[in-house]
Amino acid sequence: MAEAHADAEFKFEVLHKDLMGRVGRLRTPRGAVVETPTLMPVLNPGLASVGAGAIGAEEMRKHGAEMLITNAYLIYRKPDLREEAVKKGVHSLLGLGLDLGSGCETPVMTDSGSYQLYEYSDVEVSNREILDFQRRIGSDVCVPLDIPTAPFPHAKREQARADLEETLRRLREARETIWGGDKMLAGVVQGSSFLDLRAESARRAAEIGFDLYAIGGVVPLLASYRFEELVDVVVAAKRELPLNAPVHLFGAGHPMIFPLAVALGCDLFDSAAYALYAKAGRYLTSEGTRRVADLRFLPCSCPVCSSHSVGEVRESAELLASHNLCVSFAEMRTVKQSVAEGRLWELCERRCRAHPALLSGLRRLAKYSALLERFDPATKLHPFFYLGETSAHRPEVLRYSERLERFKLSGRVLVSTNPFSKEKCFTEKEEEKFESVFFVKPPFGPCPVELAETYPVGQAEVPAAAEADSEAKTVALRNVLKLLEMNAGKAKFVFVYDRSWACEYRCQPLIEEIGKYAEVKMKK
Amino acid sequence: MAEAHADAEFKFEVLHKDLMGRVGRLRTPRGAVVETPTLMPVLNPGLASVGAGAIGAEEMRKHGAEMLITNAYLIYRKPDLREEAVKKGVHSLLGLGLDLGSGCETPVMTDSGSYQLYEYSDVEVSNREILDFQRRIGSDVCVPLDIPTAPFPHAKREQARADLEETLRRLREARETIWGGDKMLAGVVQGSSFLDLRAESARRAAEIGFDLYAIGGVVPLLASYRFEELVDVVVAAKRELPLNAPVHLFGAGHPMIFPLAVALGCDLFDSAAYALYAKAGRYLTSEGTRRVADLRFLPCSCPVCSSHSVGEVRESAELLASHNLCVSFAEMRTVKQSVAEGRLWELCERRCRAHPALLSGLRRLAKYSALLERFDPATKLHPFFYLGETSAHRPEVLRYSERLERFKLSGRVLVSTNPFSKEKCFTEKEEEKFESVFFVKPPFGPCPVELAETYPVGQAEVPAAAEADSEAKTVALRNVLKLLEMNAGKAKFVFVYDRSWACEYRCQPLIEEIGKYAEVKMKK
Repeated sequence: MAEAHADAEFKFEVLHKDLMGRVGRLRTPRGAVVETPTLMPVLNPGLASVGAGAIGAEEMRKHGAEMLITNAYLIYRKPDLREEAVKKGVHSLLGLGLDLGSGCETPVMTDSGSYQLYEYSDVEVSNREILDFQRRIGSDVCVPLDIPTAPFPHAKREQARADLEETLRRLREARETIWGGDKMLAGVVQGSSFLDLRAESARRAAEIGFDLYAIGGVVPLLASYRFEELVDVVVAAKRELPLNAPVHLFGAGHPMIFPLAVALGCDLFDSAAYALYAKAGRYLTSEGTRRVADLRFLPCSCPVCSSHSVGEVRESAELLASHNLCVSFAEMRTVKQSVAEGRLWELCERRCRAHPALLSGLRRLAKYSALLERFDPATKLHPFFYLGETSAHRPEVLRYSERLERFKLSGRVLVSTNPFSKEKCFTEKEEEKFESVFFVKPPFGPCPVELAETYPVGQAEVPAAAEADSEAKTVALRNVLKLLEMNAGKAKFVFVYDRSWACEYRCQPLIEEIGKYAEVKMKK
Repeated sequence: MAEAHADAEFKFEVLHKDLMGRVGRLRTPRGAVVETPTLMPVLNPGLASVGAGAIGAEEMRKHGAEMLITNAYLIYRKPDLREEAVKKGVHSLLGLGLDLGSGCETPVMTDSGSYQLYEYSDVEVSNREILDFQRRIGSDVCVPLDIPTAPFPHAKREQARADLEETLRRLREARETIWGGDKMLAGVVQGSSFLDLRAESARRAAEIGFDLYAIGGVVPLLASYRFEELVDVVVAAKRELPLNAPVHLFGAGHPMIFPLAVALGCDLFDSAAYALYAKAGRYLTSEGTRRVADLRFLPCSCPVCSSHSVGEVRESAELLASHNLCVSFAEMRTVKQSVAEGRLWELCERRCRAHPALLSGLRRLAKYSALLERFDPATKLHPFFYLGETSAHRPEVLRYSERLERFKLSGRVLVSTNPFSKEKCFTEKEEEKFESVFFVKPPFGPCPVELAETYPVGQAEVPAAAEADSEAKTVALRNVLKLLEMNAGKAKFVFVYDRSWACEYRCQPLIEEIGKYAEVKMKK
C-alpha cells in the first residue's frame, strides 16, 4: 500500500484495530482532537432543507459530534451567507464556540458542491473558486469539486473513465491550491461501480497525496441497498489508500451501515440523514428505518424515547431528529467498543441481519477474508463466537487454516470428529499407540488435543460437532484434507467421523477425498 | 388447550400476536391496566441486596415500570418491616403513590420465598402463612410457596416428581385460601427439565385454575446458558396453559432473553438483574453483559450513556443500575413493536446472534415451527425477510408447504428455478404449451408465476435463487417434491434447475428423487 502524504503522518494515530476497522485519533493542524470512527452531522446554516427539526451546533456537540460538515457551495451561492462566512469564518457562521476543554474550535469539513453537480448536472462555481472559498472561510477539511459518477448501468465505463480523469485533474489542482498550513485536504475517490477504476482512482489520489481520503459516489448504492457492490467498491479503493490516513465514506449517514463500513476501514461518516429522515417522518434505528406513523412503541432507550410517548414523537420533527442523531452516535460508540474488544465481526453478524441485502453485504465481506486477515489482530481477549454460516469464513478461521502448515507429522496420527466421546472407536490403550491425536472442531478443523484449550480454537464457542451447520463442517473437513495432503507419505492417518457428518451431503465428497490419504472409519 | 379460570376471562386482552407472542392488556381486579409483555422490577425495601444502586418506586415508573414485584417472605422475616407492611400495605411500604392518570395504585406482585427455599433448602414460613401475609399486605398478585426443582442432572426425576406433587398440593391450598376479591393468584409450573413433568405440572395447574401462570425453576438454565432446554421447558408448559391468561417467566430479567421468551408466549418478566448486575459492575445490553471495567465506550443511547463518560458510569452503581433498567425497558418496547409489526422472528434472528448458545435456542425454536404456525398470524403487512439458515424454518414457510395441497394440477407443468432468466430452456412459445408454470423461490419452493407478487412468497425478500444457502434450497426442493408427489399421475412435470443448484451436495439426492416424478433438465 502507498505511503500517506508526509504531512499527515503524525495526525492520525490508530488506537485499536479489528478486521480492517480501527479506532483512531485524528489531530487537526489547529490542534483539535477527533476520535474516529466518527459521524459528522451535516449543518447547513439558513437552509430550509433541514427545516423544523434543526439542531444547533452546540446541541450537536452534546450528542457527541466531534466534527461537523457543511456545504461550502450552498453558503457560496447565497450572497448574504457568503459575505457573513468570509467575515466571521465558517465556525462562527455555524454557531460553534471555542471548546472550553481543549481551547480549540470544533473542526468543520466543507463539501464543495459535488453532490449538487451530480444531482443537477451543473454548478455555478469552478474547482479553484470553491477551494479558494473554503480556504477563506477557514474550513478545517477542504474538498475539491470532484465529479461523482453513478454506478453501472446508469453510467457506462467511458463516462466513469472520463469523470475520473477530470476528478484527478481537479485533485491535482486542489493540492496545488491548498498545501500545508492549517487546512487539511481530502482526496476524493470516484470510479463508479467499476472496481478497476475505483482502484486506479484511489492509487492515483494516493500518489498525489492527501491528508485524508473520501470515497464518493456511493449514495445510489446505499439508497438502493446494493450492499454487495458497496463492499466491492470500498475494498477496491481501500486497498490502494495509505493506511495512516483516515477514510471518509461520503454520504453514508444511516447507522445500519456503520458496522460494515467500519469493518472495511472507513473512519469518517457524514449525516444529513438524521434531519432529512426526521422531516419525512422516518425513525432511524441501527437495524433499519421505520415510518414513525407505523410505530406503536418506541424501540429505543434514548432520552427522547425514554421520556416521550410515541404520539409525542410522531408530532415533533425536532424530537424525531434528536432521536435520529442520538441513535446514530450510540451506534458509532457501539462500533468503537466492538473494535476495541475485537468483536466487530460479531456486531456485523447481528446488524447485517436487519435486511437480506445487508446479509448479502456480509457474505461479500466474508469473500474478502484473506484481505481482512492481514489487518485483523492475531490474538483477541474475547473468545470466537460462531453465530451462523458466515462465521465459518471469519479471518480467524482462515488464519488457522494457514497455520496448519506448521504441523510436520510422522508416525500414526488419529484425526477424529469426537475423540472425547465415551463411545470411542479405540480404547485408551489403542489411542496411546498414535503418535498424535487431532480432534476436528468446526469450522476450524483439525486441532491437536494438546492445544484443546488454546486461542482461538480452544476458546471458540461453537456448536457441538454433531450440531454444526454444513458450512462449518465443510470448512473443517477442507482443513482436515489440507493437513493430510501436506503430510501425505510422512504420517499414517486414521480418520474417524461421527455418523452426523455422514448425513451432510456436502461432507460426503470431502470424506471420500480424505479417504485417499487416510484409513476412514465411521462411528455408528 | 385448557380454558382459563373463569374469573380471569375479561382481565387479559390480546392486542397483537406474532409467533406465540402477544402484546396484551391486563386489567387487575383493582382497575389498574398493565400492558404486556412487561418487566416487573424487583424492589425489596430496606434490603442490602439492592445496595447503592437502589432506584425508588417512582423512578421505576418513569423508566416504564407498570407493575413491580417484591419478596413477601423477605418482608415477613423482618419484624419491623412486617409490621409496617401490615399497617400501611405493601404499596405504601414500597413508596408507591396513587397514579394520577388512572387513579389506581401501581400493581405489586409478591413472591413467596420459593427462591429462598431453593437457595437455602428451608424457609421459616408455611404456604398458608405466607399466602395469608400476602393477602394482609394487599398484594395484587399472590404467589404460593411452590417447590422449585433444579434441572437434570442436578435433580433426578424422582425428586422432580415429588416436588411437583407438593407444589400442586400447595397450589390447591392457595386457591382455597385466595379466591376472587381483589387479589390475583399465580399458578406456578415446576417439573425441572423433564418435559413430561413440565407439561403435567402446567395441565394440572390449569385444571385448578389461576389468574395467571408462572413458569418457575428456570434460573439455573438461564444462568448456564442452556437456552435450548429453556425453549423446550417453556414450550412444554405453555402448550398446556390457557391462552387467555398471562404467563410469567420467573427469574428472567436479562434483556437478551426477552425476544425469545416472548416468542414462546411469555408475558411477564421480573428483574432483580438491573440492580444485582450493577452492584457487580456489570453493564446490561440487549446483546449480552459487559463488565463496565472493560468498556472504553458506552454502546447505548440511554440518558445515562448519552450524557456521561464511561469513567463516570464505571464509578457509579446508581448510574449503572439506571442504564441497566433503561435498556431493559427499551428492549421490551422493541419486542412489543416487533410483535405489533409481525417481525418478532426477525428480531430473534438478530438478538440470538449475541451468543452461540442463544443461536442454539433459536434453532430449537425453529423445531417448534409447526406449533408456532398455529398461533402466528396468516398475513402480515411486513414482507418476509430471509436472514439466515434459521429463516428457512419460519412458520410462514411451513404454512406455505401445507398449502401446496391446494394445487390440483393436470396437463404439462413446468417447474423452474429461474423461469424469468434470459437463458431459458424453452422459448416463450414452448412455455405456452405448459398448462402451468411454477418458479422455485427458496426457501418456499414452487410458486405459480401468477402468484409471483402475492404474500408471502411474492413479497419475500430472499437471496436470489442462485445465491440461496443450502438450507433454503433444500427446503424449497422438498416442497417441489411434495407438489410432484401429490399430483403424480395427474400432471406431466418438467423440472428445470440452474447449475448453481447442482453444486449443492444436499440438493442432489432431492433432485434425483424429483426425477422419479418429472423430466429433469439442468440449465448450463
